[in-house]
Amino acid sequence: MSATAGRTPSAPASGGRRVAGVLAPVLTPFHPDLSVDPERLVRHCRWLLANGCAALAPFGTTSEANSLSVEERERLLDALVGAGIDPARLVPGTGCCALPDTVRLTAHAVRRGCAGVLVLPPFYYKGVSDDGLFRSFAELVERVGDDRLRVYLYHIPPVAQVGISPGLVDRLLAAYPRAIAGMKDSSGDLANTRTMLDRFATRGFDVFVGSERFLLDGMRAGGAGCITATANVNSAAIARLFRGWRTPEAEKLQEEANGIRAAVERVAIVPGLKAIVAHHAGDPGWRTVRPPLVELPAERREALLADLAGRGFGMPGLGG
Amino acid sequence: MSATAGRTPSAPASGGRRVAGVLAPVLTPFHPDLSVDPERLVRHCRWLLANGCAALAPFGTTSEANSLSVEERERLLDALVGAGIDPARLVPGTGCCALPDTVRLTAHAVRRGCAGVLVLPPFYYKGVSDDGLFRSFAELVERVGDDRLRVYLYHIPPVAQVGISPGLVDRLLAAYPRAIAGMKDSSGDLANTRTMLDRFATRGFDVFVGSERFLLDGMRAGGAGCITATANVNSAAIARLFRGWRTPEAEKLQEEANGIRAAVERVAIVPGLKAIVAHHAGDPGWRTVRPPLVELPAERREALLADLAGRGFGMPGLGG
Repeated sequence: MSATAGRTPSAPASGGRRVAGVLAPVLTPFHPDLSVDPERLVRHCRWLLANGCAALAPFGTTSEANSLSVEERERLLDALVGAGIDPARLVPGTGCCALPDTVRLTAHAVRRGCAGVLVLPPFYYKGVSDDGLFRSFAELVERVGDDRLRVYLYHIPPVAQVGISPGLVDRLLAAYPRAIAGMKDSSGDLANTRTMLDRFATRGFDVFVGSERFLLDGMRAGGAGCITATANVNSAAIARLFRGWRTPEAEKLQEEANGIRAAVERVAIVPGLKAIVAHHAGDPGWRTVRPPLVELPAERREALLADLAGRGFGMPGLGG
Repeated sequence: MSATAGRTPSAPASGGRRVAGVLAPVLTPFHPDLSVDPERLVRHCRWLLANGCAALAPFGTTSEANSLSVEERERLLDALVGAGIDPARLVPGTGCCALPDTVRLTAHAVRRGCAGVLVLPPFYYKGVSDDGLFRSFAELVERVGDDRLRVYLYHIPPVAQVGISPGLVDRLLAAYPRAIAGMKDSSGDLANTRTMLDRFATRGFDVFVGSERFLLDGMRAGGAGCITATANVNSAAIARLFRGWRTPEAEKLQEEANGIRAAVERVAIVPGLKAIVAHHAGDPGWRTVRPPLVELPAERREALLADLAGRGFGMPGLGG
């Protein structure tokens, strides 16, 4: 356990109110022609916020965000805010390969009043230097040029291949202590999460684990919560774990959440989550994914749903 | 040597005139504020076409294309065609992570009369299935919906991580024999190039090697030429090798080209090539790269230029 255990992530050094708790990287629903569906997105976001999510991280990996154009992302964010979803509970993903795209999406999110942005490093070139990544984020902060900007660095080496090192965080925090707000650590490596917390949590840097599997360990080490794909379907249970992490029930809540996670991880996670939402919403159209992802074959889908049913899993109120 | 050796890649089964020979994935020049510079791009393209390039592949990996927005790519292509560069000699890169972006750039290139497009697979998600990739390319062909479309599949696993398998090519050629025109093989694996040629060259599928290092072997196996980063600076010599691949001088020409290639490969290749162009054009501004790439440190740049000078390397007419 680190020296920072027990700090309150929602009261950081920089003063502004910060997000903490369970965030869902919201699934993106598509029409049959693969166009985005703002109405179903709004409905799902409302359900998530009413069922345990402290905030939402639309346009993450689980959201197929990199399969969306910049215009589609802007339009969907406008639809969310326009529908009355509080932007103080939104941390949209805005990191693209191209700096102008990242700047444009980030500036748009800041203008809409979002609590922060979750920013992938540019991920096309591999083996790039920390100098180059520092410059990417520095250009982002300088070009957006807005005191309200709060950047959460998105570390997901299994997918992006390009990661965020402690040395890079150190340099960014030194240069932009107000704008660099934290990280989503989807490395799947708790040792990395602990390193980030031990080195940077006292500097107002909030670390979210990228899977609820690490939520209890992360909170004990001083973490701020989790941003996790499975929150799209299991937000209430994960939020109970977040709220109860200091209680005697914590281990049991963690185990229960792990069981659902394991069931989902047995299939491709984005099509799997969409199949679950489709089933519980009574809306098969929710299963649609954009290429290069593909829908689950019917037999895998049915096996997943049966597995979850056997665990007493449900999504009450989703189909309403 | 394969059974297809010696065929004429410029006379494919589908009838239209195809590109063959040496293509440069053209470097993208930037202004000091990192904005794109169409004027210098046009000048460089003219020099390349006058110095051995049969055609140009702007917006490739060497072009920092994935560091450009969709709008910037469209504007630069319009600038090239507007400046009188023959679109029948242009094969722009149009493959993005997001299908709508790939469709938009591809449709734009077809409307401008480009000879073809070089299309990366969607490269954010890793470990995707051939089903998903097939669907990506199928949606592209169907949505562009233009008989003039010629797609060159861009296989560059060291960077994109997501590759193009022989099985995928087979399915795509079966479904779209006219639109699927060939491949750039940047695997760095001649065995893969040979597999592609042996299986698909008789079906009108033109294979370009991704480095002049494989040009002679590729031509002997029935290849169509090369699309290579170093053509940005050494196009004339590489074109001599292409023209002379059946002559007794071929091995010597290959060796000479390899020497220049090796010198450039000793540094980061995009900043290295930009430093070479900057030097020979007498225009230090050419050195600018967009993050996450970084310029060469001065000492590495000087060592590279000295190495090349020692080999008698030059770019006559570039500074004019």
